[in-house]
Amino acid sequence: MGILVNIHPSMGAPIVDSLRALAPGVQVWGHREEAPADAVEAMLAWSLKPGVLPAYPGLKLLCAPSAGVDKLLAVPDLPAGLPVARTVDPQQHVEIAQYVVGTALRHTRELDLFARQQQAGDWLRRPVRASADCRVGILGLGEVGRFVAGAMQAIGYPVVGWSRSAKSIAGLATHSGAEGLKQLLSTSDILVCALPLTPETRDLLDRRTLSLLPRGAYFINVGRGEQVVEDDLLALLDEDHLAGAALDVLRDEPPQPGNKVWGHPKAFVTPHIAAQASADTVARQCLENLRRLRAGEPLLNLVDVARGY
Amino acid sequence: MGILVNIHPSMGAPIVDSLRALAPGVQVWGHREEAPADAVEAMLAWSLKPGVLPAYPGLKLLCAPSAGVDKLLAVPDLPAGLPVARTVDPQQHVEIAQYVVGTALRHTRELDLFARQQQAGDWLRRPVRASADCRVGILGLGEVGRFVAGAMQAIGYPVVGWSRSAKSIAGLATHSGAEGLKQLLSTSDILVCALPLTPETRDLLDRRTLSLLPRGAYFINVGRGEQVVEDDLLALLDEDHLAGAALDVLRDEPPQPGNKVWGHPKAFVTPHIAAQASADTVARQCLENLRRLRAGEPLLNLVDVARGY
Repeated sequence: MGILVNIHPSMGAPIVDSLRALAPGVQVWGHREEAPADAVEAMLAWSLKPGVLPAYPGLKLLCAPSAGVDKLLAVPDLPAGLPVARTVDPQQHVEIAQYVVGTALRHTRELDLFARQQQAGDWLRRPVRASADCRVGILGLGEVGRFVAGAMQAIGYPVVGWSRSAKSIAGLATHSGAEGLKQLLSTSDILVCALPLTPETRDLLDRRTLSLLPRGAYFINVGRGEQVVEDDLLALLDEDHLAGAALDVLRDEPPQPGNKVWGHPKAFVTPHIAAQASADTVARQCLENLRRLRAGEPLLNLVDVARGY
Repeated sequence: MGILVNIHPSMGAPIVDSLRALAPGVQVWGHREEAPADAVEAMLAWSLKPGVLPAYPGLKLLCAPSAGVDKLLAVPDLPAGLPVARTVDPQQHVEIAQYVVGTALRHTRELDLFARQQQAGDWLRRPVRASADCRVGILGLGEVGRFVAGAMQAIGYPVVGWSRSAKSIAGLATHSGAEGLKQLLSTSDILVCALPLTPETRDLLDRRTLSLLPRGAYFINVGRGEQVVEDDLLALLDEDHLAGAALDVLRDEPPQPGNKVWGHPKAFVTPHIAAQASADTVARQCLENLRRLRAGEPLLNLVDVARGY
């Protein structure tokens, strides 16, 4: 009996290594072909094709290597009663802030333009965009939004935050509610979406709201793809109302081959990598749940399958 | 009488606009061809070819749009006694920190790799490099080095600073002296040079010192090109001892067409743009010195031409 790491080797191989290093006594398989079907006790996976789960009659635990489990819960043949556990990444807020700051500066400091100039042998200096023209608006003031705010302030950018209900945060100007959202959008040269997905935030960012951003604004999404009406966003990019977007989350992950985001010259699309639990974190949390399973103890970080999170 | 802005239009045009907006009564020329030679009272320039200055018999003030004036002072026919003023950029430390954080994250978070993946239609996720593997070492703990330290800490990276003589800075571990330099180098996955150019720092970073960095380290230079033995740096990049470098300063600016830094796949070279006074700042400080010149008052931010800074 053991653990099948059913994840692409680019992410899965380090997890296999960590599992083996942390628990030499536990059988670990890195590929489906290697694992005897009836010996798979626990499986690590982001997403699964129909037909996979029923092939493992001894499966007692499904672990996601991430906090988000929507892809796993969408599997049509998820056995009723199979425990599904998420991975809690203690560094999530830090990693997302790195992504936001990195993509924001890539845009505001024109790093790609300078890289192209270098390739062309061109030593053309350009003015630095004033921090006053890099007003940051952050949607969502949970742990992620607050940490992003601090990181953006640390590079000299003025930051304002927004949340549905009013929040008071030391050192940060905030808006709230529908009227506050309009105010925030109309004064954000860089808009960061760090909202959770709820019925209220689904489709929140559409032509009507995104049009409130100043002309030339940049949009960074580290929330969820479903919060953005992508066709509206791409149209505003095409119309030059928005200067660009960095999208780590999309409605459809991965986007279909014909999806316009793939080739859009103003959209920087990344495969949901802003934050990821390390291989060590994933391995430790999976092993702890396997130990608890075998000992009949309550499992950690279980997903409420009926509620979907 | 008036001001000649003798700077490439990519940088000069906004300065011309600012001068005209701030002082409608002062004559401003944006090109040498437009300016009657005997009417040029003040000149703004980064660098000058021999023969230019003697062509302006009425010139009474030379203004650099930057803090560094080495290029201006190197002009062989600089008239004795001509006042040379630098521009003091109150945002310099902030802008340099943006450059350092932006180029560091571009490397550690593999933003270019993800951009290439997007172009190839490839949705391959990759692990996030742990912050513990992004230990930052900062050479130089003046205003720039200290602000860079805070910005790197705000994205979760562990930071240690180094200065020649011991400094105590709240919230920052520091080393000093020759022994401390070795310690810092051997534990820096990202090395940032924010040193002033002095006889002690010239050629400080050569094969001997840069080899002390851990294999795979990244080097960011926002100090001065003369602090680095560039052939040694490029050799360490070629040998894969270093993973890459972001160089905003070089020994030769712009580098000659045959210089290997232009096409080096691991060197990101930018044309000394990490920090630049805004057009507004340059215009205000130049106009204030022109006013003082005409009123016979002492000029501001004068360079000691004999000392060279």
